[in-house]
Amino acid sequence: MKLASRLDNLGTETAFAVAAAAADWKAQGHEVFPFHLGDLDVPLAGHIVEAMNAAIADGKTGYCPGPGIPELRAALADDIGSRRGMSFGPDEVTVMTGGKPVITKFLQAVMNPGDEVLYPNPGFPIYESQIEYLGGHGRSYRYLPTDDGFRIDLDQVRDAITDKTVAIIYNDLQNPISAESTDAEREAIAQLAIEHDLWVLSDEAYFEMRYEGTSTSIASLPGMRERTCILYTFSKKFAMTGSRLGCAVAPAQMSTVFSTMNTNDESCTTHYVQWAGIAALTGTQEPVADMLATLKARRDAACEIVGDTPGMSVETPRSTFYLFPDVTEAIQIVGARDVGDFATQALHATGVSFCTRNHFGRPQPGEDRSYIRFAYSGLPEEQIRRGLGGLRDWIGSHA
Amino acid sequence: MKLASRLDNLGTETAFAVAAAAADWKAQGHEVFPFHLGDLDVPLAGHIVEAMNAAIADGKTGYCPGPGIPELRAALADDIGSRRGMSFGPDEVTVMTGGKPVITKFLQAVMNPGDEVLYPNPGFPIYESQIEYLGGHGRSYRYLPTDDGFRIDLDQVRDAITDKTVAIIYNDLQNPISAESTDAEREAIAQLAIEHDLWVLSDEAYFEMRYEGTSTSIASLPGMRERTCILYTFSKKFAMTGSRLGCAVAPAQMSTVFSTMNTNDESCTTHYVQWAGIAALTGTQEPVADMLATLKARRDAACEIVGDTPGMSVETPRSTFYLFPDVTEAIQIVGARDVGDFATQALHATGVSFCTRNHFGRPQPGEDRSYIRFAYSGLPEEQIRRGLGGLRDWIGSHA
Ligand SMILES: Cc1ncc(COP(=O)(O)O)c(C=O)c1O
Ligand SMILES: Cc1ncc(COP(=O)(O)O)c(C=O)c1O
Repeated sequence: MKLASRLDNLGTETAFAVAAAAADWKAQGHEVFPFHLGDLDVPLAGHIVEAMNAAIADGKTGYCPGPGIPELRAALADDIGSRRGMSFGPDEVTVMTGGKPVITKFLQAVMNPGDEVLYPNPGFPIYESQIEYLGGHGRSYRYLPTDDGFRIDLDQVRDAITDKTVAIIYNDLQNPISAESTDAEREAIAQLAIEHDLWVLSDEAYFEMRYEGTSTSIASLPGMRERTCILYTFSKKFAMTGSRLGCAVAPAQMSTVFSTMNTNDESCTTHYVQWAGIAALTGTQEPVADMLATLKARRDAACEIVGDTPGMSVETPRSTFYLFPDVTEAIQIVGARDVGDFATQALHATGVSFCTRNHFGRPQPGEDRSYIRFAYSGLPEEQIRRGLGGLRDWIGSHA
Repeated sequence: MKLASRLDNLGTETAFAVAAAAADWKAQGHEVFPFHLGDLDVPLAGHIVEAMNAAIADGKTGYCPGPGIPELRAALADDIGSRRGMSFGPDEVTVMTGGKPVITKFLQAVMNPGDEVLYPNPGFPIYESQIEYLGGHGRSYRYLPTDDGFRIDLDQVRDAITDKTVAIIYNDLQNPISAESTDAEREAIAQLAIEHDLWVLSDEAYFEMRYEGTSTSIASLPGMRERTCILYTFSKKFAMTGSRLGCAVAPAQMSTVFSTMNTNDESCTTHYVQWAGIAALTGTQEPVADMLATLKARRDAACEIVGDTPGMSVETPRSTFYLFPDVTEAIQIVGARDVGDFATQALHATGVSFCTRNHFGRPQPGEDRSYIRFAYSGLPEEQIRRGLGGLRDWIGSHA
């Protein structure tokens, strides 16, 4: 039986192959240190579970409105607005089954086949997959290592804009790089969007996953609100990755479209989970603070060991829960063929499992450094120390 | 800001307008009898809630595999297979956020722009919406009233097939008609699918929502398994409409595609809700039996009153929870302009809220009878009697 040709352009997250390799190695009786998955080993907070059960007991188990229950839309509008120095109405909020659905729904809403969309590379792999799947052309932009951390190559962004460009995907507090824009960089992106009348998808999955400093949304810059769709998610901040709850914040015109898409695609987001979301937003924020303190300690442990590892270097990121170390020399030290071979060797020698730069987009011409990504969100500090310590010693034994 | 032109072809469920009108009337202080929504006023069974909480306590709160947790896929393969006299493997099951997502994912998988897909009209409105949205051409087929209930117009199906036809959507135990195929009719559809090498989406949302007799899946007929995708949902059978849990059962080649789509669209279905689903499938089936007994009593009450209503007639359906009465004469009796005006007048005179045939597709040439749909799943027998009794008396007062 024949399948549709659009499937030829459907990409995926190749990181799942890393998870499979790790599971395989573990099944063979080896200890594995899972640094590959951007998930959290943090339990769902008690008050969130209680709110969900109260909702179920109260009969909140039937279909609910496609764009979300009014109470959650209002709570999201308040919370997201106030944390960005903005003010949103509930009609600008569309609840979705996580932050990820915002990507495909945004692209469906703004991009015609043949249109071009800018996206970060390395970056979250679903951007490219959905641009191409929906018949658009992805134009990737890169980050350059500088003395002041990774910076978006603004010249490349500028040069990539054509009269076919309709949107730019922008992920401040970046996965996998952990890069953060300076004010100047964020303003430059906004300026380009305004000048060329582009839509912006601002992926703010990690907006509140930070250890110092404050986050700024590009939506809050002058002239940006009317062209920006914010991707918001409960996944990271509230350790609710498996709950599948997030939303889009977008101009009402676009939000209406998202609501109709929800009605078509899945009717609504799980009803009682939405009530749990209200508790997450409006209840005690202690679990969030505790989690961030835990993650900060893990970050410091991981950075310390990576800094001590021969042939590896990394800056201490102020946000997200990823490290993106340069491993160019480490690869040479252990005599690996390339970064993929390095990952496989590392898994088998030390049990440390991680993604490489190649899981976040095709390397671009001129890239001469190799990077890997450690997600330190899914394993306790003790395991981080033992896992990365073993990796350090293994590389050291070749040095 | 400009939006993409594909949105011009995005339809929706217009039934939401009926819900809005009913809510409006209620807000004005009137009693409303909600016969418009295919939802259930049945609580989530205790053992299902317990299983969900046990899963949460056990840390099943993180991301899980895109096609579903292996345990649920296996339980679904067992249950769906055994009830259809078939045998499925877990790799033929893709868990989704309800049954509805199967519609768009099936169409994306089999239909190229310009291709034609057959679908029932009247029928579930998302079929047409998604066919057109994805660039296909919908070719609708009708049901004809006969002495033996509604029958698919097989001649029309046959005539509608061209060399551009790639699939037929088939909804035995039909919403809104409550029609059920005879064996001969089901076999004729299968024969046409085989002859013309068509994919079949078998929407089996109501497969187990029946009061007498047994259901047969078209997938179980010879030559059909390899071309059929079954839409399965927990929504109706387990009163889990708001939980958003369902699956596609399809050949492994298609299931792999669905899995990649899940990874792109929403990562996975809510993790702990999947464990609740296992409890629903494998735990006590008493709540299901109780619910069906309740629904049967409601059906009988509703049929009795509709049968006594001047200008209305309906057969007693053996399945689903809908009545689809012919109201052609009732419209004349009350002096309404058309079926839409009839619905509005009925709401204002009696508080009875319902969808009409027009919410399930555009009327086809030659349709000279008018129908409405009563969903009797969302209100207790007492309200059914009072609501429909009032409607009967109101029409009677004009007769
Ligand atoms: C940059 C980025 N955007 C979006 C998401 C989507 O997360 P979710 O769908 O769980 O909200 C993730 C998850 O890892 C992410 O890293
Ligand atoms: C015929 C039919 N198919 C599919 C569905 C989808 O239901 P769900 O997405 O809740 O599983 C419905 C719901 O009313 C239906 O009536």
